[in-house]
Amino acid sequence: MADTNFDIIIIGGGPGGYVAAIRAAQLGFKTAVVEREHLGGICLNWGCIPTKALLRSAEIYHYMKHAKNYGLSADNISFDPAAMVQRSRGVSGRLNGGVTMLLKKNKVTVIWGEAKLTKPNEIVVSAPSKPAVQPQNPAPKDKLGPGTYTAKNIIIATGARPRVLPGLEPDGKLVWTYFEAMVPKAMPKSLLVVGSGAIGIEFASFYNAMGVDVTVVELMDQIMPVEDAEISKIAQKQLEKQGIKFKLGARVTKLDKAADSVTATIEAGGKSEQLTVDRVISAVGVQGNIEGLGLEALGVKTEKGCIVIDGYGRTNVPGVYAIGDVAGPPMLAHKAEHEGVICVEKIKGLDVHPMKKEQIPGCTYCHPQVASVGLTEAKARAAGYELKVGRFPFLANGKAIALGEDQGLVKTIFDAKTGRLLGAHMVGAEVTELIQGFVVAMGLETTEEELMHTVFPHPTLSEMMHESVLDAYGRVIHM
Amino acid sequence: MADTNFDIIIIGGGPGGYVAAIRAAQLGFKTAVVEREHLGGICLNWGCIPTKALLRSAEIYHYMKHAKNYGLSADNISFDPAAMVQRSRGVSGRLNGGVTMLLKKNKVTVIWGEAKLTKPNEIVVSAPSKPAVQPQNPAPKDKLGPGTYTAKNIIIATGARPRVLPGLEPDGKLVWTYFEAMVPKAMPKSLLVVGSGAIGIEFASFYNAMGVDVTVVELMDQIMPVEDAEISKIAQKQLEKQGIKFKLGARVTKLDKAADSVTATIEAGGKSEQLTVDRVISAVGVQGNIEGLGLEALGVKTEKGCIVIDGYGRTNVPGVYAIGDVAGPPMLAHKAEHEGVICVEKIKGLDVHPMKKEQIPGCTYCHPQVASVGLTEAKARAAGYELKVGRFPFLANGKAIALGEDQGLVKTIFDAKTGRLLGAHMVGAEVTELIQGFVVAMGLETTEEELMHTVFPHPTLSEMMHESVLDAYGRVIHM
Repeated sequence: MADTNFDIIIIGGGPGGYVAAIRAAQLGFKTAVVEREHLGGICLNWGCIPTKALLRSAEIYHYMKHAKNYGLSADNISFDPAAMVQRSRGVSGRLNGGVTMLLKKNKVTVIWGEAKLTKPNEIVVSAPSKPAVQPQNPAPKDKLGPGTYTAKNIIIATGARPRVLPGLEPDGKLVWTYFEAMVPKAMPKSLLVVGSGAIGIEFASFYNAMGVDVTVVELMDQIMPVEDAEISKIAQKQLEKQGIKFKLGARVTKLDKAADSVTATIEAGGKSEQLTVDRVISAVGVQGNIEGLGLEALGVKTEKGCIVIDGYGRTNVPGVYAIGDVAGPPMLAHKAEHEGVICVEKIKGLDVHPMKKEQIPGCTYCHPQVASVGLTEAKARAAGYELKVGRFPFLANGKAIALGEDQGLVKTIFDAKTGRLLGAHMVGAEVTELIQGFVVAMGLETTEEELMHTVFPHPTLSEMMHESVLDAYGRVIHM
Repeated sequence: MADTNFDIIIIGGGPGGYVAAIRAAQLGFKTAVVEREHLGGICLNWGCIPTKALLRSAEIYHYMKHAKNYGLSADNISFDPAAMVQRSRGVSGRLNGGVTMLLKKNKVTVIWGEAKLTKPNEIVVSAPSKPAVQPQNPAPKDKLGPGTYTAKNIIIATGARPRVLPGLEPDGKLVWTYFEAMVPKAMPKSLLVVGSGAIGIEFASFYNAMGVDVTVVELMDQIMPVEDAEISKIAQKQLEKQGIKFKLGARVTKLDKAADSVTATIEAGGKSEQLTVDRVISAVGVQGNIEGLGLEALGVKTEKGCIVIDGYGRTNVPGVYAIGDVAGPPMLAHKAEHEGVICVEKIKGLDVHPMKKEQIPGCTYCHPQVASVGLTEAKARAAGYELKVGRFPFLANGKAIALGEDQGLVKTIFDAKTGRLLGAHMVGAEVTELIQGFVVAMGLETTEEELMHTVFPHPTLSEMMHESVLDAYGRVIHM
């Protein structure tokens, strides 16, 4: 009979869970992961990764449509939704298989099913309550199943699921969540996206690039409400140029469904209008998966639908930990991964720093891309800082012009008193790959002086990061 | 009559010169730049920038040819060399106009012509000895011309030109330098590139992508000889897969020209072979423009064809400075710019750090790209360091797979004793934009611990930077 006692059991095999498991195994812990559907979680199977694959197809389709700009030409430029979706699923499948292999290599036990905590050190696993949307590849034949398992430490990493607003309930046919939006059988002619966070904007950008008539409704008065307002405005303008329509400060109050279309009632500024579209994507945020885990019975504290933890993933109940989306915002895969590593290193007794949430970057992969870390200008001002703000536009960067991507901005925010970098905000080509330089800088408590002395390579987009810092201190060269 | 006395005169309006001029003006110096042909220098007009424009066309052409991989399709995929070249020239022209405007805005005087130092504080400017290859845009109508000018400080920033090897003399018709290679009237059927440094490899990559049969001859036993050997080998393998042929440890000893072709004699390993091609590109390096400046008469010290300077651009003659390519390797635009800024800040008396040459990144924009900073593994070992070396392959990165760019490597080299980052070397998609994160880290004397605590955003290529560091310390997750 298989051993059912572990040092650490992690509930949920998403990016937080499987990374924590691998790190735990590296540290010598006997480790198990409980997963009910697919290793890699939503991120790898239905989120970050497959959307990037779709957006890559859209990016190249965009280039093809604009071939003439580059001295190129082609006829009958076209796309095959099934082939694009198949490619996207293939990318997820490959990585899903990779996670299976990594866990095996690290001797992490996988338990298949749904877990419920019965004591702080015990879970009962039952068969998955619903069939997997995408079958696990390879099939989980050598994995453990339902039963009772014990561990000195149990880490909850159950992630999150789409939030459902009354009146906007997804039906999988006319009203989609990211699940259906990721695998369109054909392109709708028109689309209403409710919510302009990263998920909503990425789908809006994708479908618009593929020729769909896209309208986005956002409750707040700026798109991507967590981003710096100036950056959001530039992104909005560029997305509008490409054809996306935005309704800000607006709310969808009703959806009337016909056989193959939906009529949405949209209220804004006291007025009401109706919009009929083929499909609706509800992207009004996600909520933590805290239900059915037995948290109430154990007295694990939750708040606003998430488990309350300290900087090391510890809940109020000794031996019970939580990481990732279920432990609160920012609900991002890299935050989950890092939280997982910190959590198991702390369990090991290593000298580990607590999570610094203010140094977690965020990325949106629309076109142009948006990336940021730290405080927005508004939040920095609200926090009482006296600021030095630097800006550098893509329009003045040689590489951006050579790429044909001359729209965007790099904005940096410094504490005027200490020179400390408080925030960096970018919109434009490749900024999701650029932001890490500022994250490294913030982690090292860099001042403007040190960044000004850094030699950024020419010709790159990254030179704008340097120039933006120079601009904050009145020393910009190329503007 | 125009004023002919300045605080600082800079000879040469390339990236070193014009940036130094703008910074000098910001610091309150009365500044002039002498330029004989085109503001922005070779970099902007015939180097970094226009090649990036051509390589962008090649990149998109490559995507179009592989459209099927992304679920896309098109017929009659084609290119127009004239349109591609026109786009490339347009990009240079736009930036050239930008530099003109920046100098004007900063009240930097432009003197048109060729300068010769007659005293440490005096130059004589004569009319350009040859017509401009590309007319200055807008025309330099409000600029000063030939005459005698004085300045307390004179900065030589005359750059470099292609090195000419005996027997490989460029003729502008069959044997090209980067000037002709940048503006092909039509695509040759076959091409021999002599030299596999950044310039040679970028042209090889470009022409190969456009369907030309390309052979590269390199004297050393690895391509891109300044790069880490492991990285060069991966780049070579990828370039070979695309069809480029390499002859390493080889030398072109003779070129026999016919009406519209050249037969090259190539010697390697004691054997000799002949190769007939349509065109030859000589890319055997560049040499400093130290001639005709009056250096000998003033006693300005030179060595190996470059002016000898200290960490602040000072030559052995008080009042005479040199920056950029003419002041020695690495001959890179960003090194020139930074040297220019340091030089004028030191003249101003600011508390400025000397140039740290070991922290200057280098980039090659072939496909896949190559980027690096600091010591190669071989050089670090030769320097006596005990090393921790980390590697992470693109093959195991989700974004790379989603992009369809799963070939490449991120390699990091640490001092095992102190944990200091000694070098970082990358080959693969977008690495020229990634390297800055490691440059920031090196500037701040980061250790592995700090890099491991940095949260890199998911899903990005930059996550591989994190994993490579983890790998150096036996903690890699996704491998």
